[in-house]
Amino acid sequence: MRVAILGMGSVGRGVLQMIEEKNLGITVTAVADSKSALMDRDGIRIEEVLEAKRIHGFCGDKSLGAMDVVTGAAYDVLVEVTPTNAGTGEPALTHILTAMERGHHVVTSNKGPISREFSRLRSIAAEKGVQLRYEATVGGAIPIIHTLTQGLAGNRILAIFGVLNGTCNFILTRMAAEGLTYEQALLEAREMGYAEADPTYDVKGIDPAIKLVILANTICRETLKLEDVEITGIDLLTNDALRLAEEQHCTIRLIAEAIPDRGILRVAPRLLPISHPLVVEGTLNAITIETDMAGEITLIGKGAGSVETASAIIGDLLYIRDAHAGSHSKTT
Amino acid sequence: MRVAILGMGSVGRGVLQMIEEKNLGITVTAVADSKSALMDRDGIRIEEVLEAKRIHGFCGDKSLGAMDVVTGAAYDVLVEVTPTNAGTGEPALTHILTAMERGHHVVTSNKGPISREFSRLRSIAAEKGVQLRYEATVGGAIPIIHTLTQGLAGNRILAIFGVLNGTCNFILTRMAAEGLTYEQALLEAREMGYAEADPTYDVKGIDPAIKLVILANTICRETLKLEDVEITGIDLLTNDALRLAEEQHCTIRLIAEAIPDRGILRVAPRLLPISHPLVVEGTLNAITIETDMAGEITLIGKGAGSVETASAIIGDLLYIRDAHAGSHSKTT
Repeated sequence: MRVAILGMGSVGRGVLQMIEEKNLGITVTAVADSKSALMDRDGIRIEEVLEAKRIHGFCGDKSLGAMDVVTGAAYDVLVEVTPTNAGTGEPALTHILTAMERGHHVVTSNKGPISREFSRLRSIAAEKGVQLRYEATVGGAIPIIHTLTQGLAGNRILAIFGVLNGTCNFILTRMAAEGLTYEQALLEAREMGYAEADPTYDVKGIDPAIKLVILANTICRETLKLEDVEITGIDLLTNDALRLAEEQHCTIRLIAEAIPDRGILRVAPRLLPISHPLVVEGTLNAITIETDMAGEITLIGKGAGSVETASAIIGDLLYIRDAHAGSHSKTT
Repeated sequence: MRVAILGMGSVGRGVLQMIEEKNLGITVTAVADSKSALMDRDGIRIEEVLEAKRIHGFCGDKSLGAMDVVTGAAYDVLVEVTPTNAGTGEPALTHILTAMERGHHVVTSNKGPISREFSRLRSIAAEKGVQLRYEATVGGAIPIIHTLTQGLAGNRILAIFGVLNGTCNFILTRMAAEGLTYEQALLEAREMGYAEADPTYDVKGIDPAIKLVILANTICRETLKLEDVEITGIDLLTNDALRLAEEQHCTIRLIAEAIPDRGILRVAPRLLPISHPLVVEGTLNAITIETDMAGEITLIGKGAGSVETASAIIGDLLYIRDAHAGSHSKTT
């Protein structure tokens, strides 16, 4: 299977590294970063590309760009991991649309296109008979999309409850454990590299709300948007609230919840018993799925990290590889 | 897709009920219980069969048995959920072998055949080009086999740690929470219907050891057996041990662990911090998978129950249905 990779940040490099190290039956025929691109229908030399990127800051020919790869490279699957504006979904959205229109499968870690244009992207994928996979957009290494769509196949998903933002969870964990104020815990999160200089996107609950939209659309196949989510962040949370929670053997976590039958789509700090499965520590993510047959299933794992995100992308690629092997065998 | 179901206990009836209620594209063409069988290549009437079973205690023609279904019914997939001796794996083993030899897919909840004859069953499945799926053998409704083989595809599984026996976990939970002795907690487990009259199989750690063998063979594709597991049960555990654990903010859980690279295959009571993801309450099961890319992923859910087991079987059936749809389309 031939793969083209757009984006040579830590995730793109992680995916390349894993394809190089593991014998997955995947050939990388093109890569692009923000300054250049490289194409070779026989397969690029991954070690050399990573080395060039490390030394020179770019990977290939500066006269080429990402769209040259999308329209000109020889590939079966586009891996779209460019730095993308979560608001507009660009440039990933255009790359994904163009690749699918041309009959290529797509794997992405970019939340913007999937949360904003899910229904449009799904119908193009169906029309063109290609796969659109986005395991890496939610929950990092946790195979949540896979579990919802394949692992729990046959179940009706009644509700999803999740700790979907590691930054917020780290801050809440530190406030509860050490009695830090919100500001002190945020400062610590920044020092540890868990929070951005501008933490709004995380602490106001926008990031987990976007992920919730992706999960909700996955189970409902509807056209929910970020604007449909009722959002309360953690930035106004006081130590008093956490102390009161502790007195009741509880703690506070930022919970994203989707309950389709009741029209609930909400991100808000919630009081949970300390023994509750969603009370995970530090930057972990956790998701509970409530189903009609399997009861409640909870998944816990690392919600971020380049290797963890690469793991989700590799999983999607192998899913397509196996389906592709099946469809390929029909024509041979 | 046509399915034949052997076994009309709570799991078999649960599977029938779910196929009847949900629109899954599955037709049941045969059923068998311990006294009778019923076959109809156009599809049996599920409601009538369940009603007959409930009123008369058997479902069909008393001159027919399970092997008549295996060799004579019109089916694509055999669902093998007969009451089976976990030691010998019979009668399920013979049913499964015969069905696969005749080119049929198999889905089973029976641990005996899978833990005893995994490598033989796998090679027959490969040779005959059929699927052998056994999600329901471990962790009840938790899609653990699916996660190991598909959800985390591409990862190397470095270790598995699991709470795989709900009866033991219930006893340990009650001993820790209420200061009950082992005998008192066991009595309570019996009264709640969580423990058998003879609890040896559970409390001596044999049941979780069998499940561990299934998980270990799944990730290593080796020929491990129950005899390869070092087993310590919970029946000699004292209240003093639990009290000491509590003083260290820990508790005790019966943990099954497989670490292939270190040759470790063990079931034993282990001290865990109370905030550890594997410290689940009551009859829940929990499994942590340690991987090279995805880090540690933990799954928690109900480890037993007829609907939960039916959920796992339905998931396997749909997996085969989708693969089958692909292969079927090749010939049409």
